[in-house]
Amino acid sequence: MRISELGEFGLIERVQEWTREPGHPVNGAVSAACRAVVDNGDDAAAVAFVSDQVTELYTTDTMVAGIHFTSETTPWRDLGWKAIASNVSDVAAMGGTPAFALVTLGLPADTLVDDVKELYGGMTEICREFGTRVIGGDMVRSPVAFITVALTGIAAGNPMVRTAARPGHLVGVTGPVGGSAGGLRAMLEVSGSAGTDREQLKLIHRRPRPHVAEGRILVANGVDSAMDVSDGLADDLGKLCAASGVAAVIRADGVPAEPALKSVFAEDWLDLALYGGEDYVLLFTAPPAVMSAVIGQLPNSAAVVGEITDGPAGTVTVLDPDGSTRHRSGAGWDHFG
Amino acid sequence: MRISELGEFGLIERVQEWTREPGHPVNGAVSAACRAVVDNGDDAAAVAFVSDQVTELYTTDTMVAGIHFTSETTPWRDLGWKAIASNVSDVAAMGGTPAFALVTLGLPADTLVDDVKELYGGMTEICREFGTRVIGGDMVRSPVAFITVALTGIAAGNPMVRTAARPGHLVGVTGPVGGSAGGLRAMLEVSGSAGTDREQLKLIHRRPRPHVAEGRILVANGVDSAMDVSDGLADDLGKLCAASGVAAVIRADGVPAEPALKSVFAEDWLDLALYGGEDYVLLFTAPPAVMSAVIGQLPNSAAVVGEITDGPAGTVTVLDPDGSTRHRSGAGWDHFG
Repeated sequence: MRISELGEFGLIERVQEWTREPGHPVNGAVSAACRAVVDNGDDAAAVAFVSDQVTELYTTDTMVAGIHFTSETTPWRDLGWKAIASNVSDVAAMGGTPAFALVTLGLPADTLVDDVKELYGGMTEICREFGTRVIGGDMVRSPVAFITVALTGIAAGNPMVRTAARPGHLVGVTGPVGGSAGGLRAMLEVSGSAGTDREQLKLIHRRPRPHVAEGRILVANGVDSAMDVSDGLADDLGKLCAASGVAAVIRADGVPAEPALKSVFAEDWLDLALYGGEDYVLLFTAPPAVMSAVIGQLPNSAAVVGEITDGPAGTVTVLDPDGSTRHRSGAGWDHFG
Repeated sequence: MRISELGEFGLIERVQEWTREPGHPVNGAVSAACRAVVDNGDDAAAVAFVSDQVTELYTTDTMVAGIHFTSETTPWRDLGWKAIASNVSDVAAMGGTPAFALVTLGLPADTLVDDVKELYGGMTEICREFGTRVIGGDMVRSPVAFITVALTGIAAGNPMVRTAARPGHLVGVTGPVGGSAGGLRAMLEVSGSAGTDREQLKLIHRRPRPHVAEGRILVANGVDSAMDVSDGLADDLGKLCAASGVAAVIRADGVPAEPALKSVFAEDWLDLALYGGEDYVLLFTAPPAVMSAVIGQLPNSAAVVGEITDGPAGTVTVLDPDGSTRHRSGAGWDHFG
């Protein structure tokens, strides 16, 4: 059945059915701060705050069919997961815990109702995983499918920002990079064999896991400078440096990557790790003493990858193990290029 | 210049320039409750609450080119105004004051930079008018232009909801209806003369003014059942009745409309008033004693238009002055129909 046959209100009813989860708890950090008092279905949702020491985070992220995803590489269920994941990752990058989501769907009239159900299935999965909830949204007809998620979060302590990197800071990542780009490449390769390593990479691409716990560890240890890696390690470090008015050096031999990535793409893994997007690990900077304290509390794959330097704001230099400057092969991602 | 020539980061810089307003205050109700501590340009925006008696509202609304607007009837500046206005209206319908907005733009790569500037100009105008601010968002490439706004608000007292209408309540509106639909029709009529009345209707369509002050008057007087009129008085009353499990009667001779509407569309004004959308006045229900107390505090054009009855949930009957049932000419707006 197509959504045009069901009509707007029929579809809204179905969505309420698919997303109804009696007793589905929000996570502890959120319920200590606030509770939803008006849920889906009114002009606006309403959240009552029960503490006066709350800093709330707001973020939003959009995926457009044919630009950010295709039905070939992203089934509807994965699309639902990823649309929430990229927002959860932004909240994680501030050191917060995700709270409430508004979901906007733009859909062609001939979209299958079953596909929309799958989409909500993926969103429900990740919401349950991270203890967050969809409390509102909008559904509109559109010639091209898109999904916009706006997400709130509750900050633990001072939010980590992009403007706080200082020369002398070390640069760390909370986990391996390049896996998502490797998974996407594995999907697109016609000749690609099956193989466990390839399947692992595809799963990383399909179901990225935002580093919420890692973000809270960073904040608890006094880190105040961070962002998430969504457009690639080198590009995103460039953005953080630009916002802070500093430069940075990445040491290629310090960049952590999944063994599966190194095995499947033995030649290119470092390019994928440096320039591939959608990893959703956190990139952070801290004075050496803070860095050495925090790195031991993070998962094993967390690593120091370089340092912040004086220099033209936003410049990132990648050094190969022999000390020579590495030049990138491809161009970065420009949303309007 | 087209946005593809400027690139994503060039465009983001321009937007920050266009939206920078040093000292631009948020309204009093908002600054008493919270303040922005991380603004545009980071992974997420952050708002610190300074009171523990706050109920926050969240809403989102989307406009897609070719579906909800066309460049013929909605210049970019008006589009910016309207995209914020429909969200402010949702906050008003809960009795709240608008606070912070996240703006997502999906734009074709050949969009003119000057058009984007106009769009932000319209958003800035209405934000200034209502004391609210854009603190974040997302910009993505899309084959079809769309604009999604997510808006928070601060509730004054208990939020008014759609589920609280009861048999015996009277039904009121906070202002005239049909003006926006009349303005749209005036724009589309090739043969339409100029005339002051037509210009007034066009302005109502182009620059709707959400009823924030009116919503606060309703809450202050104990009204707990309301929504905004975005899809047409009769349709929206049907939604409110469906949510409350009740029916309603509208008395056609009680429906308020601008004199300009009655003058320009002498034959059809009542159909435009009953079934035309985007008026953004508030529709509310209350026991007779509450209604008579509140109606005198609202603008003169506020009026009682009918009553809530027992009957099949969501059914709205329109009675003509002679007591006969009025049948509608056209079908309602279905987003996927």
